[in-house]
Amino acid sequence: MKLTKQNLSERIDYIYDAIVVGGGVGGLSAGIYLQRYLLSSLIIDKGKARSFWMQELHNYLGLPPDTPGRSLLRQGKEHYLTLGGDMLDAFVEEIVDEGETFAVKVKIDRQDSFHQTFHARYLIAASGIIDYLPNLDNMRNVFDYAGYNLHVCLICDGYEMAEKKVGVFASTASKAEVVFSLGWFTPHITLFTQGMFEVGDELRQKLQENGYQIIETSIQQFLGEDHQMNGVELEDGTVIALEAGLISMGSKYHADYLEKFDLEKQGENLVTDKMARTSHPRIFAIGDLKVGLNQVVVAAADGALAATQIWRDLRRSRPMAGSGSKILSDR
Amino acid sequence: MKLTKQNLSERIDYIYDAIVVGGGVGGLSAGIYLQRYLLSSLIIDKGKARSFWMQELHNYLGLPPDTPGRSLLRQGKEHYLTLGGDMLDAFVEEIVDEGETFAVKVKIDRQDSFHQTFHARYLIAASGIIDYLPNLDNMRNVFDYAGYNLHVCLICDGYEMAEKKVGVFASTASKAEVVFSLGWFTPHITLFTQGMFEVGDELRQKLQENGYQIIETSIQQFLGEDHQMNGVELEDGTVIALEAGLISMGSKYHADYLEKFDLEKQGENLVTDKMARTSHPRIFAIGDLKVGLNQVVVAAADGALAATQIWRDLRRSRPMAGSGSKILSDR
Repeated sequence: MKLTKQNLSERIDYIYDAIVVGGGVGGLSAGIYLQRYLLSSLIIDKGKARSFWMQELHNYLGLPPDTPGRSLLRQGKEHYLTLGGDMLDAFVEEIVDEGETFAVKVKIDRQDSFHQTFHARYLIAASGIIDYLPNLDNMRNVFDYAGYNLHVCLICDGYEMAEKKVGVFASTASKAEVVFSLGWFTPHITLFTQGMFEVGDELRQKLQENGYQIIETSIQQFLGEDHQMNGVELEDGTVIALEAGLISMGSKYHADYLEKFDLEKQGENLVTDKMARTSHPRIFAIGDLKVGLNQVVVAAADGALAATQIWRDLRRSRPMAGSGSKILSDR
Repeated sequence: MKLTKQNLSERIDYIYDAIVVGGGVGGLSAGIYLQRYLLSSLIIDKGKARSFWMQELHNYLGLPPDTPGRSLLRQGKEHYLTLGGDMLDAFVEEIVDEGETFAVKVKIDRQDSFHQTFHARYLIAASGIIDYLPNLDNMRNVFDYAGYNLHVCLICDGYEMAEKKVGVFASTASKAEVVFSLGWFTPHITLFTQGMFEVGDELRQKLQENGYQIIETSIQQFLGEDHQMNGVELEDGTVIALEAGLISMGSKYHADYLEKFDLEKQGENLVTDKMARTSHPRIFAIGDLKVGLNQVVVAAADGALAATQIWRDLRRSRPMAGSGSKILSDR
């Protein structure tokens, strides 16, 4: 059920089999599998998964290629709730490992906020990442196009940019390297440094060899209409015509609550085994938080793997579903 | 495009970037990703993927939980063809590694059959498995219920059997062990050996301790109506009432064409790396053929991984899409 201020108290003394942090694609898939294994689960979601911003999913098997990310999320949420899963709109502030359980402390409501603690045997970190966007004075101007033809994922949307005149908006020299992969799809590339980094000699030469343009001044605004970006106005008033954009400015990882566990990482991504288990035996990580390909279908599969492994773990300690102690005071 | 007798000749001298053997969930997902990477691909399918038999997919994120497997396959096929992929209804008989390419020899048409050879740089083995079913005189009687409430996958359908009186139809003592995992979902279990194997003392005792029944005679037929099995008639005429069934008789692996490559295996399953690559650098294996969880969403993710790795490999050898030699005589 959807947890609200009114019914929250029913879950205070409860021990969930698993709490899933994040109600995006990975978290919902995990939740559906957990409930179908007759395990008890709570998905804590603070809203707006990365896929929420995708206007069209072009590569998810089974859905027509113009399906918006939010439709997939809506369907998954409904599916999960139908299976009796619990869902809470809240922000996870802190998690304490109590040995057999985790205490998950959340903040509920932005206004009049209050704190609540939930308990679970297993944790699935599915809180994902969110892409950094060009930081303009008027952010509405960015949101008008991001997720439409101003893309954030080359693997997802390279095809949409094929043969087009594409602007790449990078924040560092290493993030600018994506232009060379984009070169697979189109030769018409302009790199915008947004004045954020210096282009070294080697990179400059390589860009020139490939026939790519470089623009090193700041951006005033994106131009376009009906969510279709068709160019950029620079700070000096110059207008550069474009047919699509690719933002390569890195991502914020939503995983502060995991920091104290000192989990094994590769760069910013969590290292997991084949069943999505992290270096902590009762913490799983799925989707964009973990090492691997950041794709919707991969996150959905990760959810199935993590839930299955948790079921296998729990099956070893209980003869059958429902026979685990569910009340905190029973510990 | 759909390859037919009429247009086949257009592809004879062609080198595909990848040939995908099998047009099930994994193969279609791989095909969609390959085409979106602007690679050329051919899916060779002999029809009737394992998911074709699933009347309802209950755990695939994004689809309502009563979606039949064949709807997912139909949508995926349409999606793939829209992206310009080639598809051929045929059976792969033999594959020869020619060094930089594979020669894939297929048999087309069951009646008036003829052979044709296609070429590709990479191979994706997505031909899956098919479950062995009880071998009754009247197989129609089995097909009437298999995929409805006569299940073949505990992970997929344990939930559907919860608290029900379930018959488990096993073919060996080790395959009978699934009853103990099924015990998580229901205590009302009858094991049918179908007269195919002896129940040893240890297994017999464990079954009795759990309160499970054992029936060791052969089955005459399944009983029921409207595709809902409600019992079994034994050879001696006895009728056993049931509410659901689980078949555990192993699976046939559709991978004869891979035998000569001597790929690394674990049991009957191919060992792959994180990107679904087998021990042969240009052969990938996805879905049920490989080691891992046999789930629709996992197969779909595997397809994304294999296609992405093939794109990465090819990108190293070509500056951009379309710049690879595509004609056999150009080698």
